[in-house]
Amino acid sequence: MGRETSGPLRLLRETHEERVLSVLRTRGPLTRAQLAEQTNLSRATLSSIVQTLLSNQALVERPEHTLAEQAVRGRGRPVSVVMLNPAGGLALGMDLGQRRIQVTISNVAHEFVASGAVACAERTPWARRLQLALDLVDDLTTRHDVSLTALAGVGVGIVGPVPVGADSAGLVRSDRIALVRDTLRARFGVPVYVDNNTRLAALAEAVWGAGSGVDSTLYLRLSYGVGGGLVLGGRLFAGAGGAAGELGHISVNRDGPSCSCGGRGCLERYVSLTTLQAQCNDILDARDEKARDLVAEAGTRIGEVLAAACNTVNPEVVVIGGELAETGDHLFKPLQAALRRYTHSQVHRTVRVTRAALGPDAAARGGIALVLTTSPPGTEWRTALDQEAVRP
Amino acid sequence: MGRETSGPLRLLRETHEERVLSVLRTRGPLTRAQLAEQTNLSRATLSSIVQTLLSNQALVERPEHTLAEQAVRGRGRPVSVVMLNPAGGLALGMDLGQRRIQVTISNVAHEFVASGAVACAERTPWARRLQLALDLVDDLTTRHDVSLTALAGVGVGIVGPVPVGADSAGLVRSDRIALVRDTLRARFGVPVYVDNNTRLAALAEAVWGAGSGVDSTLYLRLSYGVGGGLVLGGRLFAGAGGAAGELGHISVNRDGPSCSCGGRGCLERYVSLTTLQAQCNDILDARDEKARDLVAEAGTRIGEVLAAACNTVNPEVVVIGGELAETGDHLFKPLQAALRRYTHSQVHRTVRVTRAALGPDAAARGGIALVLTTSPPGTEWRTALDQEAVRP
Repeated sequence: MGRETSGPLRLLRETHEERVLSVLRTRGPLTRAQLAEQTNLSRATLSSIVQTLLSNQALVERPEHTLAEQAVRGRGRPVSVVMLNPAGGLALGMDLGQRRIQVTISNVAHEFVASGAVACAERTPWARRLQLALDLVDDLTTRHDVSLTALAGVGVGIVGPVPVGADSAGLVRSDRIALVRDTLRARFGVPVYVDNNTRLAALAEAVWGAGSGVDSTLYLRLSYGVGGGLVLGGRLFAGAGGAAGELGHISVNRDGPSCSCGGRGCLERYVSLTTLQAQCNDILDARDEKARDLVAEAGTRIGEVLAAACNTVNPEVVVIGGELAETGDHLFKPLQAALRRYTHSQVHRTVRVTRAALGPDAAARGGIALVLTTSPPGTEWRTALDQEAVRP
Repeated sequence: MGRETSGPLRLLRETHEERVLSVLRTRGPLTRAQLAEQTNLSRATLSSIVQTLLSNQALVERPEHTLAEQAVRGRGRPVSVVMLNPAGGLALGMDLGQRRIQVTISNVAHEFVASGAVACAERTPWARRLQLALDLVDDLTTRHDVSLTALAGVGVGIVGPVPVGADSAGLVRSDRIALVRDTLRARFGVPVYVDNNTRLAALAEAVWGAGSGVDSTLYLRLSYGVGGGLVLGGRLFAGAGGAAGELGHISVNRDGPSCSCGGRGCLERYVSLTTLQAQCNDILDARDEKARDLVAEAGTRIGEVLAAACNTVNPEVVVIGGELAETGDHLFKPLQAALRRYTHSQVHRTVRVTRAALGPDAAARGGIALVLTTSPPGTEWRTALDQEAVRP
């Protein structure tokens, strides 16, 4: 069985092989047991397929404790994991943030090979931001001796909304998105994926961070802006307009001020660092009583908004990131109390609130996750079948 | 190509055939173009597979305008659709509602073959409700000359929460769920799926009603209770605890009264028919000014809650059902105004609010949809591969 290298059985095996490869690309290194669960293949069949893929070097096998990812996934007896061959390709992640540009490079085996950041002024034009990012790519590839000839794709996080189908005319700020996409496509000659950088941070937390291994993650980022993202089944959930997870624009005051988003009394207006800093010396200073009170009040408001969001999607994990999350219990205790107070018991019994696990490179890492998790669904089917259809 | 009836190519074809069958089971009758899109198979390959399935009578072909479903799906030039052979099996849907028991029977081709309802008193014990439902099944099968020997499964809607994994000990009201499941399993000898009846109505609206053909549907039911459901990619989204879509328990008043759900100031408390009826003669009477004002006020509150939910998931369609939706513009105008006022522009530009399309049998039909959409994912892979693995 399964040793033929040509003929119809090869087509069936290829279909299954592509499924194994696709799961490893999306999820990273997995034990054989995890891989069997994720691919829905029997252990016997999987074993034969993995053996073939190992022998032709599409996959490699490693003891799992050498992997940094293991720290997040939890510990057990040391077993081996299989992963895509690290030589199989690279993904480039970029975060063109408000004040900071980050570039991260990973291979298809989810191993990070280079990472760096530069500061930039808040009003830096987009063409200049892109140039800074490209200079950083050159610098990193030179210093770490990385060749981009095997680049599979680029994932870029930008500030502000990125509507679904942003290429079409008439949509907000599509010029900016087109500039980023066209510049990077021309430079690297590979697919370029653009999304909001907070949403990419959400995806990175779900793949490598505090939401790793769970089915549904709701992410909230508390910084100078307040944004979020929703990750379901390991993929960023866009919604009809690409705005799913816009938790910063849920209203907390029906008579509140109007917001640039088009809404009114938005959470962001009340709990952003900009707003909070204006009311005390240093909002992150735990010794400042005024700051502590403001953080507690913000925590309650945030908990109320999260309660509405959790009654809507009942996620497995709520991940809180951004500078304000660094205040720890001062924020989390009132937040959790409000969340418990305003959710259905069936919801608050099943949802876990946790601090983000990744650092300031989260959005750039999310760009990489976007490249690795975005493959046209059903590619493997079409490939195998088109081969079948054109057979003489 | 593709004419062999044994050998390895047959395994590859079976895998693809099962994919075609699975899509038709979930989505109902489709044109060949729709089927190609849903299965991700090339037209040439699909054509060969459909031909085989038609010739062995797994599928049948019909002119599409004979199908009631077409009214919902929109009109074009008359083309033919393919569907599972109606003789291939039946699904039974039940709604054990508060005041009404509904039974609906459909075949696997999504054709409804029998339907009926009986009233029951609000405090009717569960064993008695089940007996009423079973009597109704007997009555319908006799009157419509339907044999249940080819029954594929039973889907049952019940009042109240149905936690994920409700079979496990210690969860609320699991006795009631176990009684329903065990009784029906013993009677019919097929898989029995139980879920909250409002969530099943949401699923039915997404499959056959106002959310047909879209990717994400948020459903809200405004009746004596206020509940909802979330349908993503044609399947009911449960969330971690099975409570996704609990829109009736989003708080609209942080200092409001505590609710039996464990929350406080829940929407249900303010806009249920029970609450509204207590404040006027007949809340559904459009000539009553007091009733109209109450409906408008309720519409605003509902719109505010939907705004929070829409900023969280940015659904393509919001479907509003239940008796209160019958007040039409008196409810919908203030509701839409509030929804627009409190959502991100990217959200309200892409979300469509519409009235539910199905009648009081929606939850029972949802039971059928649950049977047709719940098949263990990856079944086709495992089947084909296990055959491969055991080959000598």
